Amino acid sequence: MKQSIEELVQKLIEGDKFATARLISLAENDPKVAQKIISLIFPYTGKAHVIGVTGPPGSGKSTLVYRLAKEWRKRGKTVGIVAVDPTSPFTGGALLGDRIRMQELTCDSGCFIRSMATRGTLGGLARATKDAVRILDASGKDIIIVETVGAGQSEVSIVKLAHTILVVLCPGLGDEIQILKAGIMEIGDIFVVNKADRENADETAMQIEDMLNMASTIRFNETGWIPPVVKTSAIHNMGISELIDRIEEHWRFLNKVNRDVYFRKRVEQDVIEALRSKIEQMALNHIMKNGEYDELIKKVANKEVDPYTAADIILNSILHREEEPKENE
Amino acid sequence: MKQSIEELVQKLIEGDKFATARLISLAENDPKVAQKIISLIFPYTGKAHVIGVTGPPGSGKSTLVYRLAKEWRKRGKTVGIVAVDPTSPFTGGALLGDRIRMQELTCDSGCFIRSMATRGTLGGLARATKDAVRILDASGKDIIIVETVGAGQSEVSIVKLAHTILVVLCPGLGDEIQILKAGIMEIGDIFVVNKADRENADETAMQIEDMLNMASTIRFNETGWIPPVVKTSAIHNMGISELIDRIEEHWRFLNKVNRDVYFRKRVEQDVIEALRSKIEQMALNHIMKNGEYDELIKKVANKEVDPYTAADIILNSILHREEEPKENE
Repeated sequence: MKQSIEELVQKLIEGDKFATARLISLAENDPKVAQKIISLIFPYTGKAHVIGVTGPPGSGKSTLVYRLAKEWRKRGKTVGIVAVDPTSPFTGGALLGDRIRMQELTCDSGCFIRSMATRGTLGGLARATKDAVRILDASGKDIIIVETVGAGQSEVSIVKLAHTILVVLCPGLGDEIQILKAGIMEIGDIFVVNKADRENADETAMQIEDMLNMASTIRFNETGWIPPVVKTSAIHNMGISELIDRIEEHWRFLNKVNRDVYFRKRVEQDVIEALRSKIEQMALNHIMKNGEYDELIKKVANKEVDPYTAADIILNSILHREEEPKENE
Repeated sequence: MKQSIEELVQKLIEGDKFATARLISLAENDPKVAQKIISLIFPYTGKAHVIGVTGPPGSGKSTLVYRLAKEWRKRGKTVGIVAVDPTSPFTGGALLGDRIRMQELTCDSGCFIRSMATRGTLGGLARATKDAVRILDASGKDIIIVETVGAGQSEVSIVKLAHTILVVLCPGLGDEIQILKAGIMEIGDIFVVNKADRENADETAMQIEDMLNMASTIRFNETGWIPPVVKTSAIHNMGISELIDRIEEHWRFLNKVNRDVYFRKRVEQDVIEALRSKIEQMALNHIMKNGEYDELIKKVANKEVDPYTAADIILNSILHREEEPKENE
């Protein structure tokens, strides 16, 4: 296994599609293998421009992503796409049908597409998505697009790994407050009014601009970037080229104006997230193995011990025992 | 301070309003003080029936909560209300205006109302809300209602602390998919079609029932409870008594059918959440204090070390140093 991961990484760096797919799957299924892979590929990462695409269902995100990928290919860039679907048992994988058109792109050697769905915890999906982006980055893709199916809080938190976030809306999507409450206005670097061939597109664009003006003093001081609102009609292939110009403008902005502060912050977040996920795994593994745990839970159920004190007891026990010989070293 | 917390707890248990308010604030502002308070009150908790109320903005949740509280008071029960608002910078506290009518209840000595808004992290708000519920429970409230302003993922995760979760919808709220994607269908124990005096109320109720039937094999095996759909018009005070009957039916169901498994699972979740929040605090504190951290981040930025390895380095350093004498003991 160890041998084969190193071989796969070698092929990945040469841009091999099979190795890319295999490494993403391996990293997805096991955080320990993921760590091994990331440590090998990490020196080759950090070149890609990562674009996040979020917005409510029905705003036409999939079609837009398809058009963006085609346009970037025309401009000579290689493209990776990660479609994230934290599926609820109520919606099943129904919306994945939208992605059939994506298969056209699959035949293009400069393009790689991957779907990620929830397995296990949410933290797991965010981690797996981040690792998939790193693997695509190491494979030499110039552009990596992370698309979410909806705009729930979980999807918003995943899309934040991107450098440039597109929030895609469309005219007549109904209750604007829904969109506000989901917290997606705060994260947009560029707002796209898709399906702009419909009535009321200008009105929708204006509403967004009003909201941005209202909020600009709160948020946008952070980097100084003022989010533009761009109208597109993905299905009619309109506005795509202008949108890409804006995306590239944002990328130049990030690299010029605030490069050091901005990229250092991202590195810090990466480390803190890695730490968080490791500590949680450690604590939960420990709980699973430890026979005393059942006793303790009974005491809490009987109101003899409160949950915080129980956590202290478990924590102390982790701190004094977790010094076992390490695996895989 | 130590003295005064113990005094406040004594008064809390006697049902004193001022002590209740003060302890909730103290617990909200400092996790360490919260732990102290919870350890003192924990033996007095576990009696209240906790009701969570969630649903999209505009579904009339606040009015419904007001009517429920009034009806329970009529039935001789004491009531605590915690209104949670993980406010976005875009919506401000605007919706809090709705709560002015709640002030009527404030004058009733058998009723206690508290608003909680985001301060710091999300984990912080969930923790503070849970502690507020525990404090109200120890103060002797029979019923505790946790109401969220919207139905985003963060609000859904907070409302899960309840025993009985009401999902409030209303006719004509638009794009049903929005509601599905937010993940609120999965958590409802009782579905309320509020504003049922409007057109299409029956249609909305039927749609919900269809979705529940579709999904019943997936979710509801867990406890065997089949979520009813109840029509109300909070503003006209219609359907409230029936809704309360259903809520109490669910409470009897939990206490009879699955008591041991159900309540043990909740205790486990409480302990794991306490553990999670403690470990995170510990790791982040450690990072703040530790001078080597800057060095490490630079190495990650320069691609000399990958984030997972950096996390291992920090973790090892925590495991070998965190054995300082404890405070407040």
